[in-house]
Amino acid sequence: MEKVPIGTNFFIPMPVVLVGTLVDGRVNFMAVGWCARANANPPMIACGIGNHHHTPKGIGVTGTFSVNLPSRDLLEKTDYCGLVSGATVDKSQVFSVSYGNLKTAPMIGECPVTLECRLVQSVPLPTNTLYIGEIAGAWADPRVMKGGKPDFPVLDPLLLTMPDNTYWTLGSSAGKAWSAGLALKKS
Amino acid sequence: MEKVPIGTNFFIPMPVVLVGTLVDGRVNFMAVGWCARANANPPMIACGIGNHHHTPKGIGVTGTFSVNLPSRDLLEKTDYCGLVSGATVDKSQVFSVSYGNLKTAPMIGECPVTLECRLVQSVPLPTNTLYIGEIAGAWADPRVMKGGKPDFPVLDPLLLTMPDNTYWTLGSSAGKAWSAGLALKKS
Repeated sequence: MEKVPIGTNFFIPMPVVLVGTLVDGRVNFMAVGWCARANANPPMIACGIGNHHHTPKGIGVTGTFSVNLPSRDLLEKTDYCGLVSGATVDKSQVFSVSYGNLKTAPMIGECPVTLECRLVQSVPLPTNTLYIGEIAGAWADPRVMKGGKPDFPVLDPLLLTMPDNTYWTLGSSAGKAWSAGLALKKS
Repeated sequence: MEKVPIGTNFFIPMPVVLVGTLVDGRVNFMAVGWCARANANPPMIACGIGNHHHTPKGIGVTGTFSVNLPSRDLLEKTDYCGLVSGATVDKSQVFSVSYGNLKTAPMIGECPVTLECRLVQSVPLPTNTLYIGEIAGAWADPRVMKGGKPDFPVLDPLLLTMPDNTYWTLGSSAGKAWSAGLALKKS
């Protein structure tokens, strides 16, 4: 296979999350595509957010934020939260809001899984900041749980690819991790 | 919807990548599930890797690493690279290897898209380190490109969910980003 150079601005397929904050006392939600687990123990998550956004103002003041996993049926509202800025539009009424252990990380009632995070470190980068948060609480709709674990086909998460700017559903199960390669290990 | 608390060790669906390094002069590949874009301009990517792994030794010495996106047909080999450590097993022959602009970031010939990264910052966390790399080169098999962009259904990436430890394929297109929410914006 002979490869060709493509632009370095390549994006791997990412889960779409909604980051919730209180900014100047008002609930705000932002669609974020750059989010991943960062630390195993204690559980931490990292979100790369552009410095020009409204959300960093809230995280900087409260030291907290939420990470909400929308299902496919929330696609329009999720996309809307990525289209308009909380600096000019009031997004506090788009979703129902609840709080868990932290009192300044608004979580979305309609999202089947929500995490509340306590900021542990901000890593400033040229155009973005990586916000690393310890997961202080994780909440799930019982309907998406099966045997004590999230049932991802029922959760029906959204994925985002760029630069084609397309949302995708989760496909079919392709195999088990830490298992599918055992035959190669033995050989 | 009344939610219940679940363990805070929650994992959002993540793309599976293979991180390539030179460790003590030998090519090594590791399966990584915690990887996301971190900065827009210049393009940077962040990977959260456990401190006990073999890969950090290589990144620390060369200051470079590669991020390779396997297709579904590489599932067994990808899983194998997550099952065994380069500290005890020679994984240098699992894939064909090539180099791009950097000479110490081995890329996988069989992966349809590969990125070579120059380490810009290591963020130490309790059990993991976030390795933030600037994308110094991005390479693609022309067969997965369509109109100058990666065609993700052809690329056929793998996703991983935990704690059910399941690999998934990418599903169907669910809508266009920065577009699906325009009706809400107007209303």
